Amino acid sequence: MRDIVDLNCDMGEGFGHWVLGDAPDEDLMEIISSANIAAGFHAGDPNSMNRVVKLAQSHGVGLGAHPGYRDLQGFGRRNIAAPADELVNDILYQVGAIREFGRRHGIALQHVKPHGALYMEAAKNEELSSKIVEALQEVGGDPILFCMGVSRTYEVARRHGLPVVREFYADRDYGDDGAIVFKRKVARPDPQAVAEKCLRACREGRVTTESGQDIDIAFESICFHSDTPGAVEIGRAIRSALTENGITIAPALTVLERTN
Amino acid sequence: MRDIVDLNCDMGEGFGHWVLGDAPDEDLMEIISSANIAAGFHAGDPNSMNRVVKLAQSHGVGLGAHPGYRDLQGFGRRNIAAPADELVNDILYQVGAIREFGRRHGIALQHVKPHGALYMEAAKNEELSSKIVEALQEVGGDPILFCMGVSRTYEVARRHGLPVVREFYADRDYGDDGAIVFKRKVARPDPQAVAEKCLRACREGRVTTESGQDIDIAFESICFHSDTPGAVEIGRAIRSALTENGITIAPALTVLERTN
Amino acid sequence: MRDIVDLNCDMGEGFGHWVLGDAPDEDLMEIISSANIAAGFHAGDPNSMNRVVKLAQSHGVGLGAHPGYRDLQGFGRRNIAAPADELVNDILYQVGAIREFGRRHGIALQHVKPHGALYMEAAKNEELSSKIVEALQEVGGDPILFCMGVSRTYEVARRHGLPVVREFYADRDYGDDGAIVFKRKVARPDPQAVAEKCLRACREGRVTTESGQDIDIAFESICFHSDTPGAVEIGRAIRSALTENGITIAPALTVLERTN
Amino acid sequence: MRDIVDLNCDMGEGFGHWVLGDAPDEDLMEIISSANIAAGFHAGDPNSMNRVVKLAQSHGVGLGAHPGYRDLQGFGRRNIAAPADELVNDILYQVGAIREFGRRHGIALQHVKPHGALYMEAAKNEELSSKIVEALQEVGGDPILFCMGVSRTYEVARRHGLPVVREFYADRDYGDDGAIVFKRKVARPDPQAVAEKCLRACREGRVTTESGQDIDIAFESICFHSDTPGAVEIGRAIRSALTENGITIAPALTVLERTN
Repeated sequence: MRDIVDLNCDMGEGFGHWVLGDAPDEDLMEIISSANIAAGFHAGDPNSMNRVVKLAQSHGVGLGAHPGYRDLQGFGRRNIAAPADELVNDILYQVGAIREFGRRHGIALQHVKPHGALYMEAAKNEELSSKIVEALQEVGGDPILFCMGVSRTYEVARRHGLPVVREFYADRDYGDDGAIVFKRKVARPDPQAVAEKCLRACREGRVTTESGQDIDIAFESICFHSDTPGAVEIGRAIRSALTENGITIAPALTVLERTN
Repeated sequence: MRDIVDLNCDMGEGFGHWVLGDAPDEDLMEIISSANIAAGFHAGDPNSMNRVVKLAQSHGVGLGAHPGYRDLQGFGRRNIAAPADELVNDILYQVGAIREFGRRHGIALQHVKPHGALYMEAAKNEELSSKIVEALQEVGGDPILFCMGVSRTYEVARRHGLPVVREFYADRDYGDDGAIVFKRKVARPDPQAVAEKCLRACREGRVTTESGQDIDIAFESICFHSDTPGAVEIGRAIRSALTENGITIAPALTVLERTN
Repeated sequence: MRDIVDLNCDMGEGFGHWVLGDAPDEDLMEIISSANIAAGFHAGDPNSMNRVVKLAQSHGVGLGAHPGYRDLQGFGRRNIAAPADELVNDILYQVGAIREFGRRHGIALQHVKPHGALYMEAAKNEELSSKIVEALQEVGGDPILFCMGVSRTYEVARRHGLPVVREFYADRDYGDDGAIVFKRKVARPDPQAVAEKCLRACREGRVTTESGQDIDIAFESICFHSDTPGAVEIGRAIRSALTENGITIAPALTVLERTN
Repeated sequence: MRDIVDLNCDMGEGFGHWVLGDAPDEDLMEIISSANIAAGFHAGDPNSMNRVVKLAQSHGVGLGAHPGYRDLQGFGRRNIAAPADELVNDILYQVGAIREFGRRHGIALQHVKPHGALYMEAAKNEELSSKIVEALQEVGGDPILFCMGVSRTYEVARRHGLPVVREFYADRDYGDDGAIVFKRKVARPDPQAVAEKCLRACREGRVTTESGQDIDIAFESICFHSDTPGAVEIGRAIRSALTENGITIAPALTVLERTN
């Protein structure tokens, strides 16, 4: 059984004049322990990054870069067939930007989580995962790489000794292979059902898949999405269910230190 | 008389498939002592940044970020009427990206030089200059700010104690007020004439303006542009004229240390 | 007194994954008689354009292009200091795109309304207004140009014989000079107050300015904004107030034909 | 044997400050009979489009839109996994823009040729080809669709009765299946060898593939690329070889009228 876990959320996913979802960043920051901040390629602009990084610092939330494909129109959810080396450069560019706002507001970069289709591509693409891991080791500072448990990304990061955190997806469905089922539109989930799913995953290490099967699931962080309808209620329900049952919610770095 | 001076050049100003000018980066890197690297908003993409930062490291050239307006179409040469706070966020975003590639290749950020219309806007806009200076002090690491001698940027940086370098423009014309005359198209200058202009500026601290007047000019770095036709020949002519006359060419940081 | 008037609204101002405001396009289309459709530079993408143009056709709403500055981050509300010729090319590019979706869905382009800062710049910039008018005459098809009554745009269009419509701004405040007061953030207005302001403007040709003064106002179209909070209620209130008082709401082309 | 053929070239493939290749547009326009003009997504901006469309008109060259993926960084050479409906909207957007500049300069749209990876994707993707063909029929005006002979695009266009032109690639290599071999970098070809390859293709309807095999090849237009090193010499060599051997070079529309 897991008695400490990270709770992460994608943040700052607007652009310019546009916002995403109805969940206020301030409310989410009080709930979560790690923030994945959009870094300009699929969403996010320097103003949102500056604002959200500052919020993360003031709430003691772990700072994460959330780099995506260069695709504002497709929100980073469309695969772009680019060489791995170029995608790694795209990732470093975005990571550096988040890190700079962290310098400004006095908070070190804790983790990197590729976004959307880039995350899914890395999960199955060993070359891309390897080059991401190597690049993160080159820039140094031991950033934690967030990924699916069932992924090449996880295998490669472990093999290379890069700190790595596996995610449990509170508001996404699972396939029988332990991978998430990627959807363009997500319905409004019941916060209590989501919270119970998370609690069970922590206690039993089990989750029910789309097909109704029960599978093992291992993770160090729970993820929910700020643009899922009712995101604040979902986050609060998860936090209450976990803390009321003796499970500590803490930034990924703390979780790794306690777990290892 | 000045016996040590920095020689800087804008670098990596292509984008994707496109390159700018005919001067090979490798050739320029052998000539200069500081590189201002385009950071994605007016020019430059993560691939060019990665490549040029690595080149700077291997040539012992001072690493500079060259942030511009978010205006690929206009190459950052069109003023955008944005609040100073937003422009500062744009600058930090770009600075962070360059710094990250520096982390990757083992070279620290030496300086920041705003590009094109943003450089000219800051020169006359005290609020913008102040916010840039404050932001660079917030992110720390004592980056040197490059600017015109006759500018609010210089005054503000000095007042706040941020390291600052004034530029002498080898391949641009001067107005009687000591400011450069901003042009969209630049003719092919004679390398020897440019070199002599630089040598005289170092020796006498004087330059002849467009109107034929002689004015005083103070600076720590000489700038020429990689997209000026014949850039490599110009750079070589400057380097030869200076070194043959006992003037050392060194990165801005070294120049500041020796000067102060 | 005015017994027929156009009622126009900016539409399709999202981008990719993002939407703007809470007003459903379908609801707005039932209220208005002319739609200004974002064309990709400040907002709008080919998918939204395709969808909204089709909606305009099915609702018998006049089709308008709403070209803006190339500035997704600033939503076209930041002035870009570009040569008039280049801005005109930007406008034609966007107009052509809207016209093409009109070809697809069987609806001709009725009008062109520059967006945001470009609209305001044209209002005071005679060269820009002249070049816009000439370009619209070159492309042909007699598109109606929407503008402020107090503007160079109106003067120039009249002088050149291009069809032109002056707007009355339902949800914006007026200065004593008859120009609108441009704001970044707009409060939620009272729909009834807005409706009465419009009704009075139609009946008396008068409006009260920010300073409390009453001024004359001439117009052929009433504009409200889809991102003003409560836009649907505002639009319905205007429509009811006008139609219940015997004022016909019709597309700008019909209004011009009846007026001239 | 073919006694009339179109000669087409991609044009206007710079962006903003950047140009592509060293071939002056004016020189190319004197050689070719159809121009595929970059329309803003992979290359091209409203200024280049305006300029090149005008050049096409003054040289009697057939006007073509050259829409690509929304990918300035990758020059449209990276596949983007987007739904066919969205790609079709992207294409119409770009086609409309080119058509508008055609309206301005008094030249009707002759053809549409998808660019780069979008062209190759359509070639093998029946759904995408079908939706492109349907959309072009919806907008009307009988635009000619340019494609590979060995492609779904050709089959679908023929089946739907859309005018269609097959291309012969002067400066690209062929596979044994009659498809071109897509490369990121292209070497400088020998103009005479290219010209003879074209002449033989016209006379015998045969081409030698990369593997040295001879295959049948059917086409109505010969394509060479403006960014192939030595493009002007290549184009001139092709034109000379064909015309000196009694083969007329004419815009695609004329070729189709004479052929059918």
